[in-house]
Amino acid sequence: MAKISRRRALTLAGVGAAGIAGTGAAALRFTADANAGANPDPVTGAVAFTGAHQAGIVTPAQDRLHFVAFDVITKDRDRLIRLLKEWTAAAARMTAGQDAGEIGAVAGIPEAPPDDTGEAIGLPPCALTITVGFGPTLFRGADGRDRFGLAARRPAALEPLPRFTGDTLDEALSGGDIGIQACANDPQVAVHAIRNLARIGMGTVSVRWSQLGFGRTSSTSTAQATPRNLFGFKDGTRNLKAEQEELLREHLWVQPGDGPDWMAGGSYLVTRKIRMLVETWDRSPLAEQETIIGRHKGSGAPLGLSDEFEEPDFTAVGADGEPLIPTTAHARLAHPDANKGARILRRGYNFVDGSDGLGRLNAGLFFIGYQRDPRTGFIPVQRSLAAQDEMNEYVRHVSSGLFACPPGVTGPDDHWGSALFA
Amino acid sequence: MAKISRRRALTLAGVGAAGIAGTGAAALRFTADANAGANPDPVTGAVAFTGAHQAGIVTPAQDRLHFVAFDVITKDRDRLIRLLKEWTAAAARMTAGQDAGEIGAVAGIPEAPPDDTGEAIGLPPCALTITVGFGPTLFRGADGRDRFGLAARRPAALEPLPRFTGDTLDEALSGGDIGIQACANDPQVAVHAIRNLARIGMGTVSVRWSQLGFGRTSSTSTAQATPRNLFGFKDGTRNLKAEQEELLREHLWVQPGDGPDWMAGGSYLVTRKIRMLVETWDRSPLAEQETIIGRHKGSGAPLGLSDEFEEPDFTAVGADGEPLIPTTAHARLAHPDANKGARILRRGYNFVDGSDGLGRLNAGLFFIGYQRDPRTGFIPVQRSLAAQDEMNEYVRHVSSGLFACPPGVTGPDDHWGSALFA
Repeated sequence: MAKISRRRALTLAGVGAAGIAGTGAAALRFTADANAGANPDPVTGAVAFTGAHQAGIVTPAQDRLHFVAFDVITKDRDRLIRLLKEWTAAAARMTAGQDAGEIGAVAGIPEAPPDDTGEAIGLPPCALTITVGFGPTLFRGADGRDRFGLAARRPAALEPLPRFTGDTLDEALSGGDIGIQACANDPQVAVHAIRNLARIGMGTVSVRWSQLGFGRTSSTSTAQATPRNLFGFKDGTRNLKAEQEELLREHLWVQPGDGPDWMAGGSYLVTRKIRMLVETWDRSPLAEQETIIGRHKGSGAPLGLSDEFEEPDFTAVGADGEPLIPTTAHARLAHPDANKGARILRRGYNFVDGSDGLGRLNAGLFFIGYQRDPRTGFIPVQRSLAAQDEMNEYVRHVSSGLFACPPGVTGPDDHWGSALFA
Repeated sequence: MAKISRRRALTLAGVGAAGIAGTGAAALRFTADANAGANPDPVTGAVAFTGAHQAGIVTPAQDRLHFVAFDVITKDRDRLIRLLKEWTAAAARMTAGQDAGEIGAVAGIPEAPPDDTGEAIGLPPCALTITVGFGPTLFRGADGRDRFGLAARRPAALEPLPRFTGDTLDEALSGGDIGIQACANDPQVAVHAIRNLARIGMGTVSVRWSQLGFGRTSSTSTAQATPRNLFGFKDGTRNLKAEQEELLREHLWVQPGDGPDWMAGGSYLVTRKIRMLVETWDRSPLAEQETIIGRHKGSGAPLGLSDEFEEPDFTAVGADGEPLIPTTAHARLAHPDANKGARILRRGYNFVDGSDGLGRLNAGLFFIGYQRDPRTGFIPVQRSLAAQDEMNEYVRHVSSGLFACPPGVTGPDDHWGSALFA
């Protein structure tokens, strides 16, 4: 029976070998750290899986996304913990560019299905990161039940999000007990990761919803150019960046004493699937688009200025005496100055999910925002946007998620949720 | 008002300029041909838009896809022709790495919406190809009406596909009067192309369905490695390749005398959205997967052999006296020897469209097959597969399309459908 690892497949491809047979699978190794230390290629190389924080948050935003939310369908706490251990091991392997497990017959049992699905054979790590978070319903179900004895451990910051003005959420596409974000520079690698985690979780968890993103809409490092969303505008110019360590401590990472110890070093993740009514947007004049956003479409500069990274001047007025950046402009309403200094690390993705049956593309932005506390981050900012943002005419929030992402896994003996379930 | 072209944005980015203002838009130029002549980068460069055949068929398969099927909603033949001319001009610009039109205020009318949506500003051509085809319903509607005086021009080869055993087609996701395939190495470039064609067509056509593909599943050039589908197997090892000119004449390109003159040099496109029940597949043993496909998962070699490109030996038997490649194996049933020599040029894509509401990923293969005549190509092959293929347990055909793709546009005075509407 042929057995193959992604790394081995690569090696063999390099020497032109085609027949691959009978190699033992390597034991789980946390090789990603070593790779990262060797300064791997930022596009195809590996990102360290272990560390103080989870990878996939301040990691330079990769180009492609596959996000999944699971419902836990077991009532057995030990079985859930066992899955979290298995997932951790598989995530460590896959982020290092290995298979989730052996692809050949498992442990000599020819009837066993392969431990890896195979579609990433031959592909390098592609900066894959896999980031896990726990939803409010894991701690206490919608029926009020405390399935896993976690209710007392729920952080106050993990209070379910309120309903915002204009929300048109599809409950079947919202929430989830566990959320997992896979980002990579090759979508096949991100899809392979989520698909194998779903495979490993079969019978213990069930896919609630999943979302592909084809293009990143934010930068999380000063070394990255600002990409464009499907309104055609640069997005995330003022995003929190990996290099701003002091701001990250203040706005991104949960600090000791913020809440339960198990979240110190973690971050709270808010996802929002935001349908953009691009057909309506595309019929509006450029000047109107720019006043709605508060920035120039070409350069990304604040209205009235010419450089993308200039600070917007919210006091500037035009010849008509009106503010150059309208009071209802998105860039003004979302600015920290209008939100008691609130800042969120965004790493969202553009999506197109076919068409909507009404002659329009089903397109938009899958918003991903990390923060120290949603009660001072996403919630007040979104309240303000939902109430006043002129952009609301062109967007619909159709899915919402909230997840507590614990700190990073520290090494081969640690696993996702170890401190939560301790 | 800022005006910007994608090429200009790139140039300016290179010299660090940020304020962009007041450039006139270049007139439509068929610059792509010139670029192609200069041997551009195969990943980021431009592919020639004009030529004897449409680009996007034997063009080395790009990594990403956005496909759209339109319903024509006008009854005005002249308006439809006008749209085809506008689309041709925009496609020529976009494949050359330019905007669909000016992004600034159009012709001095500040109230006019931009002629380009902007999300591809700064991105190179990325080998974008845009390929058009006409569906049977354009010639005669489902109601039997000949809306555009084309009924007599419908090729016999464009007979609607028959129903195949096991088909579970969603009619709303099938068919269409006009199909357009955009392939590129950056998904944002492919999405931008389709979105702008939809924008230009507003009021004349309506999006019927659209499909993103994140990873190519076939090679169309001997220079490309064979990629893997979501069953984890190499797909399209024996695909028709651009270099096989004699085979392409015989199996791919419509020849003079095959039917109406307007299709000579063209090709017939069949699309099938094939949902893969990956969760069921992932529970089956490797040996079973390999006998269903008829190839080894690791190497892609035919069962019993070790090299991917070896000819399968359908006469070989195992120790049990049974054929090594079962009579119901996909590779045997799809082989030209089992189909009177039929060969199809495939250039399909993997897709994941979220989840299915039943705890599973909605994943699979968007099949794209080009051929000289579906009556001797896709139809008999699919009849055989539908009746006998063991793989049917794991796949569901949920969408189907058939389009007559005319020959290439010859130059700036030619347009999509010129010979059909002449």
